[in-house]
Amino acid sequence: VTNSAGEFALIEWIRQRAATHANQAVGIGIGDDAAALRLSPSAEMLVTVDVLLEGVHFKMPPATPVEVGRKALAVNLSDIAAMAGQPVAAVVGIACPRDGGIDLPRELHEGMQTLADEFKVAIVGGDTNIWDGPLVVSVTLFGEATGSGPVRRDSARPGDWIMTTGSFGGSLAGQHFTFQPRLLEALALHRETSLHAMLDVSDGLAADLHHILDESHVGAILQADEIPISEAARLINDGRTPLEHALSDGEDFELLFTVSPEEGRQLLGTDTLGTPISHIGEIIDGSGCRLVHGDGSETNLPRLGWEHGFAETDSG
Amino acid sequence: VTNSAGEFALIEWIRQRAATHANQAVGIGIGDDAAALRLSPSAEMLVTVDVLLEGVHFKMPPATPVEVGRKALAVNLSDIAAMAGQPVAAVVGIACPRDGGIDLPRELHEGMQTLADEFKVAIVGGDTNIWDGPLVVSVTLFGEATGSGPVRRDSARPGDWIMTTGSFGGSLAGQHFTFQPRLLEALALHRETSLHAMLDVSDGLAADLHHILDESHVGAILQADEIPISEAARLINDGRTPLEHALSDGEDFELLFTVSPEEGRQLLGTDTLGTPISHIGEIIDGSGCRLVHGDGSETNLPRLGWEHGFAETDSG
Repeated sequence: VTNSAGEFALIEWIRQRAATHANQAVGIGIGDDAAALRLSPSAEMLVTVDVLLEGVHFKMPPATPVEVGRKALAVNLSDIAAMAGQPVAAVVGIACPRDGGIDLPRELHEGMQTLADEFKVAIVGGDTNIWDGPLVVSVTLFGEATGSGPVRRDSARPGDWIMTTGSFGGSLAGQHFTFQPRLLEALALHRETSLHAMLDVSDGLAADLHHILDESHVGAILQADEIPISEAARLINDGRTPLEHALSDGEDFELLFTVSPEEGRQLLGTDTLGTPISHIGEIIDGSGCRLVHGDGSETNLPRLGWEHGFAETDSG
Repeated sequence: VTNSAGEFALIEWIRQRAATHANQAVGIGIGDDAAALRLSPSAEMLVTVDVLLEGVHFKMPPATPVEVGRKALAVNLSDIAAMAGQPVAAVVGIACPRDGGIDLPRELHEGMQTLADEFKVAIVGGDTNIWDGPLVVSVTLFGEATGSGPVRRDSARPGDWIMTTGSFGGSLAGQHFTFQPRLLEALALHRETSLHAMLDVSDGLAADLHHILDESHVGAILQADEIPISEAARLINDGRTPLEHALSDGEDFELLFTVSPEEGRQLLGTDTLGTPISHIGEIIDGSGCRLVHGDGSETNLPRLGWEHGFAETDSG
């Protein structure tokens, strides 16, 4: 689309920076009508897009442009991790509020580039605009499937163990900007076990577990006492329990996956990932999810994590 | 990122529609953490992104959601055409104003899907949000390079003929919503001639010619009388000449390309494309562009098309 002179200057700045961060997949980077990438001929290409909106997914301040730029890429890296993919390159669509000046897009880019470097992702194209609206950052990330191919949501089987990386709840206290996408963990899991179903927890542990159950046409039993609750969730004092937060807060960006009990036991017995993993329940025939409490009582685990869930609001 | 219940319903609607429009490249479509595509193993992958912003690139009304959806894909198709690529699949990031209700994203999708069907593009993923800001549509389109590879901007050579498809100017009167991306024309040109440099004219004929000149480190002479001026440009009555409009308006989405004089002559002598083509000038050694008028006089052609050009505003 048409660009203003200010936008050309910004594009030139991004282009020069990006050139020093290109990887071997980049045939044509920023500056032509489209970028050209050389992907592995045998691998399926993975693609994911996420849009971060000021006032919906973040407020700025307290969030800084560097944090927003980092997160815009991080949530996409987490999606590629959820498929056990290897990220390769990204393109970025941005609408910057005019009053942020030239520093805003530069700092956004800074936050994004630092994380891109860490995971060897080339930023190969973009569309940068200045307008009178709030900040919008849309990142599209490409990757390649690894091993036996992408790990889907729809392949959980009755008898599977339900497992997670890390801990849950209270991410909005800060973790949602600083989380480390579980890419290395996902690649290690895909290499060393036979993953049945996997996703990254963004909507909340309960909501995302239901996605696996619905897509796989199975049910589940969760053990409340086995759910790893984050320190941040324990510190919230709002009348809801840490468990409620862990099940419903979202934006944890941890992996939720299912494997056979044998492989699950092996995973628990080794430190393959360098990241804590937990066995939180089992896949069963049927549908829906029962939550078994420490005292042996059972409740139904609603789709949105708790009966006073957050059906109509974005928690990001 | 976190989705609300309304967004889930919308995603499910889009997913069901998209499933009936998938093409053979789609391994995993909408509904998992990422889409998976099987591309041709030998072709470079092309990728381009464009963001359309309400109040900047369109006003609604008079624009309809169907028109905006169509255009959001069309501008990206034009970018893939500019590389002589074959489009394959798209992902779509959207922020919809809350007061547009559920009809707005559906109509957007409708406009996009009609054009996607026409060019056999699968819509494989998206991130649909509802917010209190203006409408934002970010489309990322993937394609495959064809023939000898992507046609770049940086390969114009002294002696080349400068040629275009179609006509220029006045696109904002309506053509910018209804234009046909020059994909078939670009593929035919790439198959039947040796294209040196090519792009699609979005910023304006003068501005985009300068992009070719700058990237290729060459200059140009344009013949004013040979520039094809659209009917729409002739109808504008604002004190600027139709030629000025043709050189500076932008959003024409016609191809601007350079070939050897021999191949240029052949192209003019045949009707390979089914679309009018014009020979408007020559590439020369040096830099910048001279415009030769009908009376033999010469002026310098500024980067932005005319001396009272539109350096600081988006014309889209």
